Amino acid sequence: MATQSEPHRVVVVGGGFGGLRVVKALRGQDVQVTLIDRRNFHLFQPLTYQVATGALSPSDVTYPLRALFGSAPNVTVLLAAVIDFDLEQRRVRLAPDRVPGAPESVPYDTLVVATGSSYSYFGHDDWRRYAGEVKSLESAVAVRSRVLEALERAEASTEVADRRAELTFVVVGGGPTGVEIAGQIGELTRDTMTRDFRRISGEDTRILLVEMTDRVLGGFPPGLSARAQRSLQRLGVTPTLGREVVAIDGDGVTLKGPGGDAERIVTRTVIWAAGVRASGLAARLGELSGAEVDRSGRVTVGPDLSLPGHPEVIALGDMVRVGDGQGGVQDLPGVAPVAIQQGVYAAKAVRRRLAGQPVKPFHYVNKGNLATIGRGRAVADLGFLRLSGLPAWLIWLAVHIWYLIGYQNRLVVMFRWSFSFLSRGRTQGSRIISDPEDAAAAQINPSG
Amino acid sequence: MATQSEPHRVVVVGGGFGGLRVVKALRGQDVQVTLIDRRNFHLFQPLTYQVATGALSPSDVTYPLRALFGSAPNVTVLLAAVIDFDLEQRRVRLAPDRVPGAPESVPYDTLVVATGSSYSYFGHDDWRRYAGEVKSLESAVAVRSRVLEALERAEASTEVADRRAELTFVVVGGGPTGVEIAGQIGELTRDTMTRDFRRISGEDTRILLVEMTDRVLGGFPPGLSARAQRSLQRLGVTPTLGREVVAIDGDGVTLKGPGGDAERIVTRTVIWAAGVRASGLAARLGELSGAEVDRSGRVTVGPDLSLPGHPEVIALGDMVRVGDGQGGVQDLPGVAPVAIQQGVYAAKAVRRRLAGQPVKPFHYVNKGNLATIGRGRAVADLGFLRLSGLPAWLIWLAVHIWYLIGYQNRLVVMFRWSFSFLSRGRTQGSRIISDPEDAAAAQINPSG
Repeated sequence: MATQSEPHRVVVVGGGFGGLRVVKALRGQDVQVTLIDRRNFHLFQPLTYQVATGALSPSDVTYPLRALFGSAPNVTVLLAAVIDFDLEQRRVRLAPDRVPGAPESVPYDTLVVATGSSYSYFGHDDWRRYAGEVKSLESAVAVRSRVLEALERAEASTEVADRRAELTFVVVGGGPTGVEIAGQIGELTRDTMTRDFRRISGEDTRILLVEMTDRVLGGFPPGLSARAQRSLQRLGVTPTLGREVVAIDGDGVTLKGPGGDAERIVTRTVIWAAGVRASGLAARLGELSGAEVDRSGRVTVGPDLSLPGHPEVIALGDMVRVGDGQGGVQDLPGVAPVAIQQGVYAAKAVRRRLAGQPVKPFHYVNKGNLATIGRGRAVADLGFLRLSGLPAWLIWLAVHIWYLIGYQNRLVVMFRWSFSFLSRGRTQGSRIISDPEDAAAAQINPSG
Repeated sequence: MATQSEPHRVVVVGGGFGGLRVVKALRGQDVQVTLIDRRNFHLFQPLTYQVATGALSPSDVTYPLRALFGSAPNVTVLLAAVIDFDLEQRRVRLAPDRVPGAPESVPYDTLVVATGSSYSYFGHDDWRRYAGEVKSLESAVAVRSRVLEALERAEASTEVADRRAELTFVVVGGGPTGVEIAGQIGELTRDTMTRDFRRISGEDTRILLVEMTDRVLGGFPPGLSARAQRSLQRLGVTPTLGREVVAIDGDGVTLKGPGGDAERIVTRTVIWAAGVRASGLAARLGELSGAEVDRSGRVTVGPDLSLPGHPEVIALGDMVRVGDGQGGVQDLPGVAPVAIQQGVYAAKAVRRRLAGQPVKPFHYVNKGNLATIGRGRAVADLGFLRLSGLPAWLIWLAVHIWYLIGYQNRLVVMFRWSFSFLSRGRTQGSRIISDPEDAAAAQINPSG
């Protein structure tokens, strides 16, 4: 417990939705907060997929962490990778750095771990080499280059089979991210092909959305899934249901149908939006505390989000499962609203515990599920109300702009979307092919 | 000469300021235009340095070439690298591509070459490894990461000498680009340090602008150079005049003063904005036609911008010197207005020649020189009027927004600048450290 002279030290690992909320809620309080992240910016993950098709630019969906907390004297931002914890000594261990005198570990009184998840290839890590992702900023930019290059190569090619392979796009995973990215590729190819290209057309394009179950958006009511599927089809996307991916290589994808029959799809662009795996730090917390770790690498925390036996260690977001206090777990989706509510809860729990007040268990309030398919097309399940089409899209729009961090980002994104909507996609967007070779050549090597 | 049935084929190599103007002026004319560029976007080079400090984002200063000419049926965009010319067969040779059936060469009736220049290290190509540049988009993004990382490392370091090295920034070359980037680093460090960082301050920072001659902005009248130097000093930049760079390595820069004395500056960030060298295609045109090539690799073209003996081949921009018709050359600076006027001239020359009309020699109209130092600080030499400070900056602002390609870019940039000006830099900008390792890992490898 902190004394009057030495404020309570809260260390927050991870500047995603959860971690950021914790720090925001503790800003200006009588605690000393250190936010540790290996990147210098918060990434607005729900819109990262829009970077992958050039609808938004990287700076629209990112916000420098220092700019967020520059005016808060009790908050320190530390750019470092956390590699381990010492729960006994209450220290967070950092990856070794070349900076002389930089700390190797950081002490805490309360630790909040919120390092999220990454995509899992179900044991097929070699698929990662061939598939694109829209999880990190860099991966989304790489997908953008890949999709635009496929169009360029199709335009340049004179062989029908080759052109067809270039114009085949396979998205794996029919959840919100898969639906969003497939819909956006549909819009991109439809908009640009009719306008910007001379030899390729929308008819040559195939966009497959591969989903293991029998419908997309499994977390939504069946009626909304059906509407989403119709919207996707109108954008040129073929929902390919009941199919499992059994191989991804440099030449395409092999699917297995419900009857066990294999189907080969020749394509140059595969985007992976299927299962996720929790950050490795979740399993490490489980190992150190004896808490359960599930198949997806998530550690089970108590109903107050704390690690068993360690009330001073909180973990949250999609790297944890929350226990119900009776040996079971709450079934929470791995989405931003859960992380946000858990972050707000964690900050409150820290303050109440410091004040010697009891802490009630975490309770998630589901305000509704949203998924967008394209301009003017979305589905919304608000519980009491189910919407699709333009009304759902307007709600999606308002929610995403509202939660977008930073006033300037909100205005620029609102501006870009209005522009795009009014001009029916006739905007340049941010359709830049980054050249990894140029980027590598431009890398400065100060250490020789 | 074109017949009624087969339109005259104009091939334009390079989508910079010059090439773009040629294509724009020939849009909708009775010629078939092919624009070839190895990148899929036009880069607004006069503002690329603002990407290097996070003031603008990459998408603000780029515009996809296809989006520019999508609505012009007589214009085709080809994404390819030009490696050679066959002036006899009148063909442009392209770099081999993996796309089956893609053309190896493109025939022309008129050829316009406008492939610009890159930075020259005066024979010290090993310096390129250590120095940053703000010429290509990728190089500017790399400089941005480098500058921001230096601040992060300085904040993390506890050793005085190391912190001092991280907070020393050396810009080589006192021309407009060097002045602009040095001034911007001054603004960035001053703005962010007082706000976003806890342990480093502006007093620890050294920004040196190294120039061989005795003043910055040598192309401007001495009075404006003096004013620019005072503005730079107010932003924390030290103009380091009469010094020559004799070594750049992983640990710093060695300068030689007027007296021959060597000075060692320990720094982690060197930005090169000194001499330029013309695109290698200029020398190739000289070799093929016998035209003179100067020490900077520029080919000398006739007063009508055509290659000697080849009226059907035009070259323009900062890869050429323009002959005065009496054995001498016109002294033109390597700036966007020259390329723009030459592009407009070239398109007119093509049309007049097709109509059988005579072509007057190219004549450059210098409307003035502008250089900006920071928010509200610039110098303008309009010939009849010399301005500095806010009036010059407002002119600079208006000109750059006006020439910025694309309506959406203009609005977003105007918005970002207004925001930044009104908030006195209190904006998040685009201060993202891109991770080249993440980018490399995110690279998708379809060919195995």
